[in-house]
Amino acid sequence: MIPAMRAAILAVGSELLGTDRLDTNSLRLTEVLEGHGVELVGKAVVGDGEAAIAAEVRRMAALADLVLVTGGLGPTADDVTREAVAEALGRGLRHDPEILAGIEARFRRYGLRMPAVNRRQAQVLDGAVLMANPRGTAPGLRLDLGGDRAVFLFPGVPVELEAMIASDLVPWLAARSAGRGRERAVLKVASLPESTVEERIAPAYGEFGRERISILARPGEILLQFWAEGTAEERRRSLAAVARRLRDLVGPAVFTGRLDEDLAGAVGEALRARGETLATAESCTGGWLGQRITAVPGSSAWFQGGVVSYADRVKEELLGVPAELLAAHGAVSEPVARAMACGVRRRLGATWGLAVTGIAGPAGGSADKPVGTVHLALAGPGEGDEAVSHRGVRFPGDRERVRWMSTQLALEMLRRRLLGLAATEDGERPAAALAPGSAG
Amino acid sequence: MIPAMRAAILAVGSELLGTDRLDTNSLRLTEVLEGHGVELVGKAVVGDGEAAIAAEVRRMAALADLVLVTGGLGPTADDVTREAVAEALGRGLRHDPEILAGIEARFRRYGLRMPAVNRRQAQVLDGAVLMANPRGTAPGLRLDLGGDRAVFLFPGVPVELEAMIASDLVPWLAARSAGRGRERAVLKVASLPESTVEERIAPAYGEFGRERISILARPGEILLQFWAEGTAEERRRSLAAVARRLRDLVGPAVFTGRLDEDLAGAVGEALRARGETLATAESCTGGWLGQRITAVPGSSAWFQGGVVSYADRVKEELLGVPAELLAAHGAVSEPVARAMACGVRRRLGATWGLAVTGIAGPAGGSADKPVGTVHLALAGPGEGDEAVSHRGVRFPGDRERVRWMSTQLALEMLRRRLLGLAATEDGERPAAALAPGSAG
Repeated sequence: MIPAMRAAILAVGSELLGTDRLDTNSLRLTEVLEGHGVELVGKAVVGDGEAAIAAEVRRMAALADLVLVTGGLGPTADDVTREAVAEALGRGLRHDPEILAGIEARFRRYGLRMPAVNRRQAQVLDGAVLMANPRGTAPGLRLDLGGDRAVFLFPGVPVELEAMIASDLVPWLAARSAGRGRERAVLKVASLPESTVEERIAPAYGEFGRERISILARPGEILLQFWAEGTAEERRRSLAAVARRLRDLVGPAVFTGRLDEDLAGAVGEALRARGETLATAESCTGGWLGQRITAVPGSSAWFQGGVVSYADRVKEELLGVPAELLAAHGAVSEPVARAMACGVRRRLGATWGLAVTGIAGPAGGSADKPVGTVHLALAGPGEGDEAVSHRGVRFPGDRERVRWMSTQLALEMLRRRLLGLAATEDGERPAAALAPGSAG
Repeated sequence: MIPAMRAAILAVGSELLGTDRLDTNSLRLTEVLEGHGVELVGKAVVGDGEAAIAAEVRRMAALADLVLVTGGLGPTADDVTREAVAEALGRGLRHDPEILAGIEARFRRYGLRMPAVNRRQAQVLDGAVLMANPRGTAPGLRLDLGGDRAVFLFPGVPVELEAMIASDLVPWLAARSAGRGRERAVLKVASLPESTVEERIAPAYGEFGRERISILARPGEILLQFWAEGTAEERRRSLAAVARRLRDLVGPAVFTGRLDEDLAGAVGEALRARGETLATAESCTGGWLGQRITAVPGSSAWFQGGVVSYADRVKEELLGVPAELLAAHGAVSEPVARAMACGVRRRLGATWGLAVTGIAGPAGGSADKPVGTVHLALAGPGEGDEAVSHRGVRFPGDRERVRWMSTQLALEMLRRRLLGLAATEDGERPAAALAPGSAG
């Protein structure tokens, strides 16, 4: 944690001003700054014009202690970051024979002659400290402006930037933070609307500070984020305390504390712990449920496979859904969902059979069963031969969202049953995304 | 097309300086500017500080003719864009009773009393033109700076911004462009490496201008983009001419000219035109192929369904793959891929059966069959009973990439067979992503 240090990030490159290429370098640098508790006060993208770059560097140097510039260090005529920064900060530029020798040597290693244009990359700002570039030709430059103020010039190529973050930026920040930093932890919540989560965690705002906890709503999932500052040990203890309290407040709708784990991963862990297996029967999701499950490495230990029963004939022949059931209720109905779940469970010999059938749109809806109507069923061990549970819902949104929400709710149904939880929670309101179909 | 008009975009909001929330408004505004041939010279994000916003607006107004600002028009204390812009441009701020009445009326319509904080949203910069906000409380503001120079202040909420783009920004730009604009068209190419596409289209650079055509490589796909300027009619004719020439040069590896169509959509169109159907058998892709196919609206007309045969027992029981074949060659092998394709085709009664089996990693690889080894097979009508084609490949990359590339190559195998093309092209080099498994 570097108290009161402020930073700004500038990405140079006309190609970053279109709609196809995003400036991802600034996100990576933001992450590094956050890890050291440095406040980001602004970021910008400018094209390859020298005057525009110079104006922006000047503004940022006035605004922030630390200015991180990426891009424009290449060999071609439109790479003018060095010149622009020299102008902005009133520094001279000189040619460095040692750097030139290094660039020439790099070309020789690949059996090439250095093109004349690359000579430009050997230019150095007066007083600059060089940052080696093991993955490219242009060295980075660091200019100390006195006190803890500095300007870093990095290449725009992500792998080259990454090397210099590790070799130069992180040590520079660490020397100023004395092991203190800022760290984030997360909890993920399924099946509850944002307002319910907000209500439940309200006491934690008072206990830990409003600014230390945030809620981010994503389709079918809420991300709770919280931060701690201090030494590594202080951060660890503080984050554990907040996580414990939030889990208490939210309850078992929290399905993971790992940012890289989704609901399929959480379901997989529960199945693996119980030595049980899963099979899926998908209609409207068309394989998406299977795709999410098999995205989890090692899922072959608990996932048997599934049937994508898009056509009714496939429901009959591969899942054993009776033709009369399809005729009487239609493919999108509770009885058919139940028959699909039981069918796939038996045919594939799995502990659990999970089925989804619905109308994803844009066509295919009716007054009776509008677009967004989805029936889900879960067959598994229970009294007698097997126990089947069902949920009928209606999701708002377009085809992609209806399909996504269907996979999310199917996985959550299974997770709740595996953990012995009630199928729904009080906080799930009929007006929310997971509204019962009958309410539609 | 507005000759020589330069624009800059500023997004205001501390929440946009983290790593979780991106400034997507600037991409949307960039698109609108591109459509009118306005050059974007810079974009930036600043937090909610008045001085920082003012400094950036001043810099942008010096750099650009048109400055588009989003965010910071809300009712709370940290919404200071109005004040900052007043300061930057030396304008006064006054309270507008008419706007206030409008905001109060909006609250009344929802049966609410206007909170006192919302009074701030009725402040107007001297000389500003109001932009109505049908979807929120804060009106937008336009300040004319003389000539064709202006500053627009938009709300940061995307739906509110969208309404003002349509009602105010586009008409303002259109009045200055006299129907002239800039437009993009695309072609998508499958199964060829970037360098081969680059080689093939080289003549078009000379004929139409290097700066009018660009190549963007994405996993398993190349996006060719090209631009035209002028009136609607001029653009249409020019884009059609470039598209025709590029299709000639690249050949049938071009699978679509629609930005919103992927390979699954192109395959679907070909199947629909022939009145044929498809069934899939997936192992390592786990349903992703089915997910992509069913993401195409109306795919039920040509997609029967599929089997996700993750476990070997499912390959035997649902697809009829002989146990001896699995024992002799392993699940990831040419004979098993062929048996899966034939099995799913017969069981589901489809014209075509498409099968994928492979090792996606991170575990499961061996010296003989390293991670990335994938076998694909396509069964369909042919001499005698049926004809089955096969491809064995090895993809580089992680689990997600191997799986994605498998779905892409499977769809391309089918597309080429449907169009009567050779299974592979000369330009596909063994060293590229689609290397034969034997070369690994």
